[in-house]
Amino acid sequence: MSGFAEATAVSKVAEGRYTAELDGGYRIGEALNGGYLMAVLLRAAVDASPHAHPVATNTAFLRVGRPGPAEISVQTRKTGRTAATAWVTLSQGDVPIVDAQVTTGTLDPDAEPSWAGQAPPALPPLEECVGGAPSLAKDRGFADRVDMRFDPATMGWLDGQPSGRLEMSGHFRLRDDDYAPDAYLLALAVDALPPVVLNTGSPGWAPTVELTWHMRAVPAPGALTLYGGGRMVRDGWFDEEVEVWDSAGRLVAQSRQLARVGRQTT
Amino acid sequence: MSGFAEATAVSKVAEGRYTAELDGGYRIGEALNGGYLMAVLLRAAVDASPHAHPVATNTAFLRVGRPGPAEISVQTRKTGRTAATAWVTLSQGDVPIVDAQVTTGTLDPDAEPSWAGQAPPALPPLEECVGGAPSLAKDRGFADRVDMRFDPATMGWLDGQPSGRLEMSGHFRLRDDDYAPDAYLLALAVDALPPVVLNTGSPGWAPTVELTWHMRAVPAPGALTLYGGGRMVRDGWFDEEVEVWDSAGRLVAQSRQLARVGRQTT
Repeated sequence: MSGFAEATAVSKVAEGRYTAELDGGYRIGEALNGGYLMAVLLRAAVDASPHAHPVATNTAFLRVGRPGPAEISVQTRKTGRTAATAWVTLSQGDVPIVDAQVTTGTLDPDAEPSWAGQAPPALPPLEECVGGAPSLAKDRGFADRVDMRFDPATMGWLDGQPSGRLEMSGHFRLRDDDYAPDAYLLALAVDALPPVVLNTGSPGWAPTVELTWHMRAVPAPGALTLYGGGRMVRDGWFDEEVEVWDSAGRLVAQSRQLARVGRQTT
Repeated sequence: MSGFAEATAVSKVAEGRYTAELDGGYRIGEALNGGYLMAVLLRAAVDASPHAHPVATNTAFLRVGRPGPAEISVQTRKTGRTAATAWVTLSQGDVPIVDAQVTTGTLDPDAEPSWAGQAPPALPPLEECVGGAPSLAKDRGFADRVDMRFDPATMGWLDGQPSGRLEMSGHFRLRDDDYAPDAYLLALAVDALPPVVLNTGSPGWAPTVELTWHMRAVPAPGALTLYGGGRMVRDGWFDEEVEVWDSAGRLVAQSRQLARVGRQTT
C-alpha cells in the first residue's frame, strides 16, 4: 500500500505539464474518488504557482477517473501578489477527466481569526461513532485508505432509517497516519463523506457535477472532523456543504458541491 | 437609461465568440459590479450551450471591468445530456477581466423541492427597511439601477455600529421593473449586497477573488430577498454566502465568495 504522498505525487515534464500514476487504492467501486483526483491536480497547480496554498478550487467532474497514468496541464491565467489563478485539467489518454479553476494564495499558518462563527456541535467521541475497520480479506480501495468514524445520528440510512435531513458527519484520518494534514488531505476530506442525500431516502450513487472548496487555514496535526449538510433537493439536483475542522478546533476548509440524486439500481 | 436586458446583451460573432458593450450604469465607483459582469458572460455561456440554465458558475475576478466594449469567449469542455461545462472569459482589449467555469443544465420551472431546509427568518417589511432612493441629481451607477432595501438590523455599520457578525440582508429588485427575474438577474443579485465584512468593523472596499453560485430554481416574478452571511475572517480573507429567495418563498440561488478584507483608506 503506497502512502498518500506517493499516491498523489506528480512529475513535472515541461512548463505547466505534469504526469501522475493514479492509485487504485482511492477508488470507490470502479471510479476513483473525486477528492483524490483534486489532490493530484492541486499538487500540479501549486507547483506551477508562486503561492503555497489552493485557497479556492472550482472543480468540474467530467468523466470517471480510473487507476493508471494521467496527465495534468496547468494554464496560468493571472499571477498576482495576493492570488494567482489557473485552469487545470487532469486527463487520461487525452480525454479530460476533471477540469478545475484554481486560485492559489499564501496563508499565514499562525494567523488567528479576527472573527469566526460558532463551531458546529461536537461529534460523539470516536468510540461511540460508527466505524469501518479495514477489510483484511480483500482490497476495498478508499475504505482501506481512509478511516472515517461517523456520527450515529447521521447514519440511520444504513438501516433504512434516514434522518430526513441533508446531513452526514464524522471523524476523518488517513490510515497512513504518518501523513500530516495539509491542503491535499483537505481536498480528500471535503469529498470523503457518503452523500448527504442518503439521509433523505435517496438510494445509491450520487455523482458530483461541480465542487468548490476553500482552504481557510493550515490544518494542525491529528484527525479532522467533517460536518456535512445541504439546503435543498429539487429536480434531481442537491447541494452538499462540508465544513472541515482540525484537531485544534479551527475551521480549515469549506466546500459546497452540486450533485445529482442517485437513481434506484435494480 | 438602458434596461437590464439591453445592458447585458451579447452578440455572437463566431462559434464561441461574442461581443458586448458594457454599461456604465452598473458601476460602483470606477469598477463595474461583478454580478453585472457575470450576467453578461453567462448570456454568452448559455447561448453556446444546449441547456437553458447556468446551474453552477465559478467566477475568478482577475481585473477591474470598465464601461465600453468587451469580448466573451466560450470554450466548450464537455456537453452531456444532463449538464455541459465551458471555460468562459470576458476580456477588454485582449486583457482577461473575468474567467468563469460554467456548468449549464436545464431546470424544470414547475418542480417542487423533494426536501428543503428551513427558510431564513423573514425580513422586516419594505417600509421598515433602510432604503436608497435613486439620486436625481447625478448618475450614481449601480444604486440607480438596483433598488435594495436593507434589514436595519444589518446596517448598523453605516452609523459606526456594526452588528459584529458577518451578515447583510435586504429586499432586491431592479428599478427597471419590467424585467422578469431570471438567471441573469440572479447573477446580479448574488453579488449585490454590500460586503458582509462591513459588519465586523472592516472599512471600505472588499474585492471578491472568487465567487461561485448555483441556480436552484427559476425565480417567480416579483422582488427577491437576499440573505448574506459568512463563517470566518482570517489572515485578510473572508467568506460571504448569499441565499436568494423569490417572491413565492422558494430558494432560487446560493452563492459563496472568497474575498479580501478592505484596507483602511487614508
